[in-house]
Amino acid sequence: MSDNFADRLLSAIAAKGSPVCVGLDPTLGNLPAAVVANSRGPVQAVEAFCMGLIEAVAPIVPAVKPQSAYFEALGPEGVAVYFRVVAAAKKAGLIVIGDVKRNDIGSTAEAYAAGHLAGPDAADAVTVNGYLGADGIEPFVKVARETGRGLFVLVRTSNPSAAAIQDFASADGRKLYEHMAAQVAAIGAGDGLVGDRGYSCVGAVVGATWPAQARELRAMMPQQIVLVPGYGAQGATASDCAASFKPDRTGAIVNASRSVIFAHTRKEYAHLEWRQAIAAAARGFAADIAGALP
Amino acid sequence: MSDNFADRLLSAIAAKGSPVCVGLDPTLGNLPAAVVANSRGPVQAVEAFCMGLIEAVAPIVPAVKPQSAYFEALGPEGVAVYFRVVAAAKKAGLIVIGDVKRNDIGSTAEAYAAGHLAGPDAADAVTVNGYLGADGIEPFVKVARETGRGLFVLVRTSNPSAAAIQDFASADGRKLYEHMAAQVAAIGAGDGLVGDRGYSCVGAVVGATWPAQARELRAMMPQQIVLVPGYGAQGATASDCAASFKPDRTGAIVNASRSVIFAHTRKEYAHLEWRQAIAAAARGFAADIAGALP
Repeated sequence: MSDNFADRLLSAIAAKGSPVCVGLDPTLGNLPAAVVANSRGPVQAVEAFCMGLIEAVAPIVPAVKPQSAYFEALGPEGVAVYFRVVAAAKKAGLIVIGDVKRNDIGSTAEAYAAGHLAGPDAADAVTVNGYLGADGIEPFVKVARETGRGLFVLVRTSNPSAAAIQDFASADGRKLYEHMAAQVAAIGAGDGLVGDRGYSCVGAVVGATWPAQARELRAMMPQQIVLVPGYGAQGATASDCAASFKPDRTGAIVNASRSVIFAHTRKEYAHLEWRQAIAAAARGFAADIAGALP
Repeated sequence: MSDNFADRLLSAIAAKGSPVCVGLDPTLGNLPAAVVANSRGPVQAVEAFCMGLIEAVAPIVPAVKPQSAYFEALGPEGVAVYFRVVAAAKKAGLIVIGDVKRNDIGSTAEAYAAGHLAGPDAADAVTVNGYLGADGIEPFVKVARETGRGLFVLVRTSNPSAAAIQDFASADGRKLYEHMAAQVAAIGAGDGLVGDRGYSCVGAVVGATWPAQARELRAMMPQQIVLVPGYGAQGATASDCAASFKPDRTGAIVNASRSVIFAHTRKEYAHLEWRQAIAAAARGFAADIAGALP
């Protein structure tokens, strides 16, 4: 099997038959009461919740996306939990996308890449913010190439005010997000980055809340796997998400966080034990996306 | 004394007579041999180095800027060292700017702000990447307002490829970095953010390696304190840095990292013990900047 991250991710998607990813966003206020009651404190509760969550979704989805912020909010012990969660998810056969949105230049970016993309407990891929230009992306690319890992560069984020910056337009009508997409496509075409299936280990983040832009970006970045946030709690539908896929149903992976991981708070799953609720919501999410693809 | 971060930073600068900041970028390969020899491993060496460094510069400079990446590269124990270093620097009377370049939206950005700007051991201010727009900045602003802390939004970074993204120009010739500056100025003018001296707790990062842009940005953001990277190892001179100051010599703080903290590797300081070398280099840095101001 190819060591290239894109090939590994595509294989995992094919094996599960489902191009979806579950976001691990353990906000304390939403944890199941049973988890909180059985934990000594917030750090333990977050760890127990994430471990149960991984067990629940591992048979259903190919990937998870732990959101670093919620672990960092708990201090160094929370960061230790983040790495244990990453390791457990990998051990459960999941591809792990660390949502860290790191960005810097030179030796500083190298240090971020070393901490988050190298070593046995690091994620399979991370998210990167490209505002600093290629200098801020290349150090992550170098480590990804060397370690069989990947990155997803923010191109078009899912939030409402994304447009205020990312729609900034040049004289010929080209928008900043298109300019960023062109940079990501060029960087991702570098030596040793494109796998057997024609996709690069350098992917892009494109929010499902902007389907017209997503269709255009799909065409502009033929070698990028698109990580698609915004489904569910943020308001995008499965057909909005479909805009980031190619006609052969490859090329993207859709993330859902709150709508799956806090399924115990949703009326339709309230009768289930929290892990069963998560598994049911994950199956529903996967089916919804599959039904909307070309 | 005002609780506003801008007022606190300006007071600290006035007390030391020097608008400079020392970056704590503890790259393992550059640590003094004496520190490495007396440490049990890399984590202890980084901690010992940073603690000695803080002691050496505290009488000379008003602020330090620990670079999170170098601590994160050491794993959760490194993150614990980061917070101990922040706490030690604050105890030594220094203003601490956590160089974390975090960015996200909604509850995720709130979690980053909670982890890095709230609580007794958190830094006085952090750096933030604004590519996601106001949604990505406001959660940090909210915590800054509530806790008397601050943030510095990346406007123009010091690296060569900054131009490839940040010079992206609209039909009327306006560049992305100018558009970002306008956003930062507007956000920073919000209720309860501007201190007694007319500066906002929402500042901006503008690299000294771009003095023409820095002069223009100084005029565009009258209420922003500018954090100025790029001096020294990155090639900018003191007169390049002067572009970010107002005629009254306020409005900016210049950072130097490697040229000060690894002074023991510089020929002119090689005869000194490493902490004495750092103190001498910090004094030289402060004098160089002071000599170049209006």
